[in-house]
Amino acid sequence: MKRKKIVTIGGGTGSFTLLSGLKRYPVDISAIVSMADDGGSTGTLRDELGVLPPGDVRQCLVALSESSKVMRQLLNYRFESGGLEGHSFGNLLLSALEKISGSFEKGVNEAIKILNVKGRVIPVTNDDVNLIIKFKDGKLIKGESEINHNFEIEKKGVEKIYLNPKATANAEALKAIREADMIVIGPGNHYCSIIPNFLVKEIAQEVFNSKAKVIYNCNLVNKRGHNEKFDLDRYVQSINDFLGGERIDFVTFNSKAPNKKLIEKYENQQELLIKFSPSKKKNRKYRVVSANLLSEKTVKFSKADAIASVRSFIRHDSDKLAKLLMMILEIGEYENLIKEIV
Amino acid sequence: MKRKKIVTIGGGTGSFTLLSGLKRYPVDISAIVSMADDGGSTGTLRDELGVLPPGDVRQCLVALSESSKVMRQLLNYRFESGGLEGHSFGNLLLSALEKISGSFEKGVNEAIKILNVKGRVIPVTNDDVNLIIKFKDGKLIKGESEINHNFEIEKKGVEKIYLNPKATANAEALKAIREADMIVIGPGNHYCSIIPNFLVKEIAQEVFNSKAKVIYNCNLVNKRGHNEKFDLDRYVQSINDFLGGERIDFVTFNSKAPNKKLIEKYENQQELLIKFSPSKKKNRKYRVVSANLLSEKTVKFSKADAIASVRSFIRHDSDKLAKLLMMILEIGEYENLIKEIV
Repeated sequence: MKRKKIVTIGGGTGSFTLLSGLKRYPVDISAIVSMADDGGSTGTLRDELGVLPPGDVRQCLVALSESSKVMRQLLNYRFESGGLEGHSFGNLLLSALEKISGSFEKGVNEAIKILNVKGRVIPVTNDDVNLIIKFKDGKLIKGESEINHNFEIEKKGVEKIYLNPKATANAEALKAIREADMIVIGPGNHYCSIIPNFLVKEIAQEVFNSKAKVIYNCNLVNKRGHNEKFDLDRYVQSINDFLGGERIDFVTFNSKAPNKKLIEKYENQQELLIKFSPSKKKNRKYRVVSANLLSEKTVKFSKADAIASVRSFIRHDSDKLAKLLMMILEIGEYENLIKEIV
Repeated sequence: MKRKKIVTIGGGTGSFTLLSGLKRYPVDISAIVSMADDGGSTGTLRDELGVLPPGDVRQCLVALSESSKVMRQLLNYRFESGGLEGHSFGNLLLSALEKISGSFEKGVNEAIKILNVKGRVIPVTNDDVNLIIKFKDGKLIKGESEINHNFEIEKKGVEKIYLNPKATANAEALKAIREADMIVIGPGNHYCSIIPNFLVKEIAQEVFNSKAKVIYNCNLVNKRGHNEKFDLDRYVQSINDFLGGERIDFVTFNSKAPNKKLIEKYENQQELLIKFSPSKKKNRKYRVVSANLLSEKTVKFSKADAIASVRSFIRHDSDKLAKLLMMILEIGEYENLIKEIV
């Protein structure tokens, strides 16, 4: 039997979680990755070496790597002092491979060989682009890192979000989408990891026109100042808007409440659990699959990885998420029977 | 038949050349490597991360690696701009592996696995040491890099050369020497790459007491301000002095003159071809094997690798050197017949 083809679209730790789970199944995985990151180690490398942003690609490579545990530790290792402080070793690897091989795409393909990666990791574009948000008052916020750390986005209102310069889609990404049986969007930071993929116009169009099932993994918590007022339906609407119409078929939603302490901790940072009210909206064109998708592991992060150590306590369990997605992939001809899945 | 065991002792590009040739033969190779480097990328990493010096070990790993060409290019790749400028990717790899695995030695062993290394690379000591020269006038020159760039060493006269603090030998290195059929010293920078190995007392003693044939690969050119007055016999005497007696059995010597332009270029930098006069000394306890060992390839170095691009034009040919060493290894019972080899 032919292996089914899954395309994931995202970036950051959300893709890491998703891919870590999916890789255990006998499917062909192509991970399409946002290329707008300009913060931290990645930003420094872009500025100083003129390379394309390695950070999101690195996380996908690590997730899909079947090399030794040490190799995977190595890729996520961050130097903790001196001039290298904060640099992720994997980012340095990708930047060096880009320099040696002559292009980011070739560099990624070398990394795929070296790291014994199961599947493919495909930059959404090979162009050197920056993410920009124009507020309704006309002010511009430039760069993913600035946007990520701006907490007035929802208050000021987004007039437009775009890439500068306009990006051409990576032909490999378009081909993967065209051949996909299932396209999985998210989880991930809405404006910084998910949407930037669809700002590459041909990518959005190709997803819209694809024959694949399109799944959206709804995040667990809203991001402060970005999406505090978003509920599940609003996220779906936002993504459909960028895709050019109502295209999403299924949405996965976590039904399990985290423990109270953790919820309080997040609420103190104005990050609230995302809500879903089945009765609020009539005639949804997508099915919402609610299930326990919550990770109950505790995770330790590198001291130098200040961002990750804060952001990742309420998160998806990669195994539960993958299992649910495989179920959706296999529903096949029965899918019309499962309206009660909401 | 049991594979013969070869131990090499050195560091730097000399070891790289030697090992690149030896690895093509069916022998067990253990490369013992000096650990006193504190210049360039290596020095920065020692200072900023508190790691042991990776540079010399890296060169040996690359020489012995049987992984892909890209992987080997990667290890020697130097970043050319920004905060990473001058850092060798391989040095960063070793430093990250030291941090992850908890010790330099364990880190090297992980690198050996990752890089598919044929043989072993053994740091001469796991202690954090610095090389110091005391001049006859009492002045101290501290650190290998300082010593390397000091051109008054021969003029002022070396009262003492030592490691600070005193180093304990790596037990693995002692074991390898004990089991060796042949021990190959050099080529390499005399005070900065070769001698520092023998400043670890137990290493010198173990070589002196070993049952192995001990070979010394004499350099091709003297180093300005360090050994301008050295001829072959003086090098041998110097090494024997550190070993604690007349221990060297064979010396390899290049008999082929480089082209005149190259000689002039070196002479302008006060680096002169090393001389050997068979008749000058009577009753040598070592045999000198003269042969064409000269590399006739031209080599390009990375822009960022300023040192290598200067130092390496008159150099050994790794294949010729290895072939001669294998011949010496196999001479066996006939060796008493070949006094005419001088």
